[in-house]
Amino acid sequence: NQSLKIADKIFSSRLFTGTGKFSSTKVMEEAILASGSELVTVALKRVTHQQAENDQLLAHLNHSHINLLPNTSGVRTAKEAIYAAELAREALETNWLKLEIHPDPKYLMPDPIETLTAAAELVKLGFTVLPYCHADPVLCKRLEEVGVAAVMPLGAPIGSNQGLTTLTMLEIIIQQSTIPVIIDAGIGKPSQAAQAMEIGADAVLINTALAIANDPKAMALAFKQAVEAGRLAYEQGGLAPVSNHHAVASSPLTSFLNTI
Amino acid sequence: NQSLKIADKIFSSRLFTGTGKFSSTKVMEEAILASGSELVTVALKRVTHQQAENDQLLAHLNHSHINLLPNTSGVRTAKEAIYAAELAREALETNWLKLEIHPDPKYLMPDPIETLTAAAELVKLGFTVLPYCHADPVLCKRLEEVGVAAVMPLGAPIGSNQGLTTLTMLEIIIQQSTIPVIIDAGIGKPSQAAQAMEIGADAVLINTALAIANDPKAMALAFKQAVEAGRLAYEQGGLAPVSNHHAVASSPLTSFLNTI
Amino acid sequence: NQSLKIADKIFSSRLFTGTGKFSSTKVMEEAILASGSELVTVALKRVTHQQAENDQLLAHLNHSHINLLPNTSGVRTAKEAIYAAELAREALETNWLKLEIHPDPKYLMPDPIETLTAAAELVKLGFTVLPYCHADPVLCKRLEEVGVAAVMPLGAPIGSNQGLTTLTMLEIIIQQSTIPVIIDAGIGKPSQAAQAMEIGADAVLINTALAIANDPKAMALAFKQAVEAGRLAYEQGGLAPVSNHHAVASSPLTSFLNTI
Amino acid sequence: NQSLKIADKIFSSRLFTGTGKFSSTKVMEEAILASGSELVTVALKRVTHQQAENDQLLAHLNHSHINLLPNTSGVRTAKEAIYAAELAREALETNWLKLEIHPDPKYLMPDPIETLTAAAELVKLGFTVLPYCHADPVLCKRLEEVGVAAVMPLGAPIGSNQGLTTLTMLEIIIQQSTIPVIIDAGIGKPSQAAQAMEIGADAVLINTALAIANDPKAMALAFKQAVEAGRLAYEQGGLAPVSNHHAVASSPLTSFLNTI
Repeated sequence: NQSLKIADKIFSSRLFTGTGKFSSTKVMEEAILASGSELVTVALKRVTHQQAENDQLLAHLNHSHINLLPNTSGVRTAKEAIYAAELAREALETNWLKLEIHPDPKYLMPDPIETLTAAAELVKLGFTVLPYCHADPVLCKRLEEVGVAAVMPLGAPIGSNQGLTTLTMLEIIIQQSTIPVIIDAGIGKPSQAAQAMEIGADAVLINTALAIANDPKAMALAFKQAVEAGRLAYEQGGLAPVSNHHAVASSPLTSFLNTI
Repeated sequence: NQSLKIADKIFSSRLFTGTGKFSSTKVMEEAILASGSELVTVALKRVTHQQAENDQLLAHLNHSHINLLPNTSGVRTAKEAIYAAELAREALETNWLKLEIHPDPKYLMPDPIETLTAAAELVKLGFTVLPYCHADPVLCKRLEEVGVAAVMPLGAPIGSNQGLTTLTMLEIIIQQSTIPVIIDAGIGKPSQAAQAMEIGADAVLINTALAIANDPKAMALAFKQAVEAGRLAYEQGGLAPVSNHHAVASSPLTSFLNTI
Repeated sequence: NQSLKIADKIFSSRLFTGTGKFSSTKVMEEAILASGSELVTVALKRVTHQQAENDQLLAHLNHSHINLLPNTSGVRTAKEAIYAAELAREALETNWLKLEIHPDPKYLMPDPIETLTAAAELVKLGFTVLPYCHADPVLCKRLEEVGVAAVMPLGAPIGSNQGLTTLTMLEIIIQQSTIPVIIDAGIGKPSQAAQAMEIGADAVLINTALAIANDPKAMALAFKQAVEAGRLAYEQGGLAPVSNHHAVASSPLTSFLNTI
Repeated sequence: NQSLKIADKIFSSRLFTGTGKFSSTKVMEEAILASGSELVTVALKRVTHQQAENDQLLAHLNHSHINLLPNTSGVRTAKEAIYAAELAREALETNWLKLEIHPDPKYLMPDPIETLTAAAELVKLGFTVLPYCHADPVLCKRLEEVGVAAVMPLGAPIGSNQGLTTLTMLEIIIQQSTIPVIIDAGIGKPSQAAQAMEIGADAVLINTALAIANDPKAMALAFKQAVEAGRLAYEQGGLAPVSNHHAVASSPLTSFLNTI
């Protein structure tokens, strides 16, 4: 698979992961290592307010190939997001930031207005911003215009495991984008991750599907393979569906029976 | 991944392949080797009527881990199928047979009546029968009752690359079957092969998607990974879709901002 | 809407109905009248073994525009079906028969082999046969060849309300058939009935969706409108989906703002 | 069907229409009358800059039951939209406005930021604002909070006839909204309009599907029936899909054959 560049970093894995909801940090670490993920998002709370838990979490992510991506999950406005980002930069010593602003406590849907406002400001403040956003083609272009490093449109509501319910819009976003497109939220099965890569997404971010699996390590391996499979197929092109039902047999239709 | 047993053979790969439509037998061989496939179907014509082509084809499939599965593609009736099966057994020295009877030259859809009739007779004649059939739950049970070794219901019209258009019926077939279920026809992308495994299919058979790829070897590898990914996820269980849209965030919803 | 001819009868309504599961025969009658249905299927049990219930049911269906279509629901073999058909012909004084053979007590899926065998025999015995069958294009052609008056492929498992899960196959069946195609089983919403008509089905048969509605009469009216809407759209042609995402605005993209 | 109230107006029809792309204003008038539509959107260009065409268009819409809804199609920013809105109010003597801001000339996708900015300002200026917007639940809530009279999320790209590709998000929007939700853009078939009503949309807006039909008047009638059918079904409730495949037969499974 071809490597992926976001801002100034090169990634050989296109599977990004989260750290929430695992049964233990040990299980989390094993799953993340099995996934091959080189970009791991960490909720801010853990790295700012609960020092003991924090130290333990970071210790388990302390591998040379893993880059931390602090996220602002829990904030409701641009102002809160910027404050949280500054805390995260100080605590984790990275400019990278997954910007998440979701005022809605039920579906955790991102707010387009606050997200764009915060993204523009954070870029000016020197952050490498990866915003979680709705699968809205115009919003993605506007985020690109203010200088974000990648866009992270959602496939379905967070944690729903419904897959690419926003497929039509994701295809347009990918077609129009000049920065990486990372599909975030809603991907619950390896087949869905493969599909995301087949349509040309640059990467996917998976969390719930790993964390709640019976065997997170095995599931991480499954997602790793699926992402590689989908990317490999995409790089060859030609995945457009055949437009009509007319069969084209792969076995020859022979006339050998005429000899009966 | 757990291994698969069909009749008296154990397979470590759940990806079966075909031999049609490749640009050359050399390209075919490379793709099949890359796929890891241990069961390869061969159209009868090639092994009975064109000796030179035949020898070349078989030479390229002459690997110890590859089992040949002659198919009856091109026949239109049970009688023709039985005649073709006898020829195949003699020519290839195997009792295994992929039974395909499709009188329809346009969509190559299998005939349920002729297929059941031929399957019953071929089982009596000592063949290990794997019938290609419609995704019809009752037909699959009747084929099972006459003693076939596995059923091969279709996902979509042959060569259409549409994926699991018969999903609802495939799920019922898999739930009810006590013999292996191999999804054949219509799978055109790795994500679709992964999905087939996730719903519990025992194997998939891929041909067109490999043969017409820009790089059949790379595509074979992609399908190999996708099949393994889907199987791995299936073996852990718990892949049922989350039934409502209500988000369950994997990132903690923190109250840390109250400190602002 | 153009009228529909099946065998020697002309129907102005393309919405056929069943009689099962209504809370009362009075509610059933009101719903069927509201639906405008001219072909109503009746399970054999009711007209053969429980005289009181039978008389009441038939009294409620005694309207000049309603044709009775006895069905063989409950039979498991061709032999049983033929016996049941003879009973039905005698009891209801009609040659018309909805042939249903489903040995499977869980999903009530039709048996392709028994159905074809019974259909061929019943046609010889002078019945006007409308077989319920799987959405199998080859089976539908074979049923047509033995002389059935129409085919009734399923959209989804009976009572599931899932709609046209067999869409790909239904489109092929409709394209190939020279006799009417009536989609039976699985249609649970007016939109699904409209879709069936849009793809060119000649009629639909609805039962569960009416019988279990809060207001069967109102739901019958909804289905009536939906069937008429879908048929009207189909008769004009041009319903193929637009193949790409490229928008074609219906509002003019004006340059009037240049005057600002 | 229950009537619909938007701002201070009561509508008995839930089918709104556009005026673009018809072959003639006469054809347009006939289709709109057949649709029963009481709210018809008109692009601003026609009513401001081409007086002759303008007069003719308005003459054909001069029916007492038809309310005009000027739209701002063609504007790219909030500033342009506000300017256009003022022109429209003066020209058509109505405060009602369909706010459309789409900087993207290819897919005509609405801009969330400019749309919210313009909506807030236009509400303050006394307009009854109906914004066309992405199927973004948070954006729809924010539009509601600034006082728009209804939201008009898209089902699919304008003119694509793909139907409710944004279904998952539309369901959340409908569930959360306290103002009417009108699905606009992408609906190309009566079945899709019926589906929109079944999920609880308050109305749909159709233009392209009517304008490019072979017989716009007949297609308008088809959409009218489909919208009424879908609404009628919705008002009865109980349209949730049956969650498993397990059949619940509507015909009794009888034991009458035991008497054979």
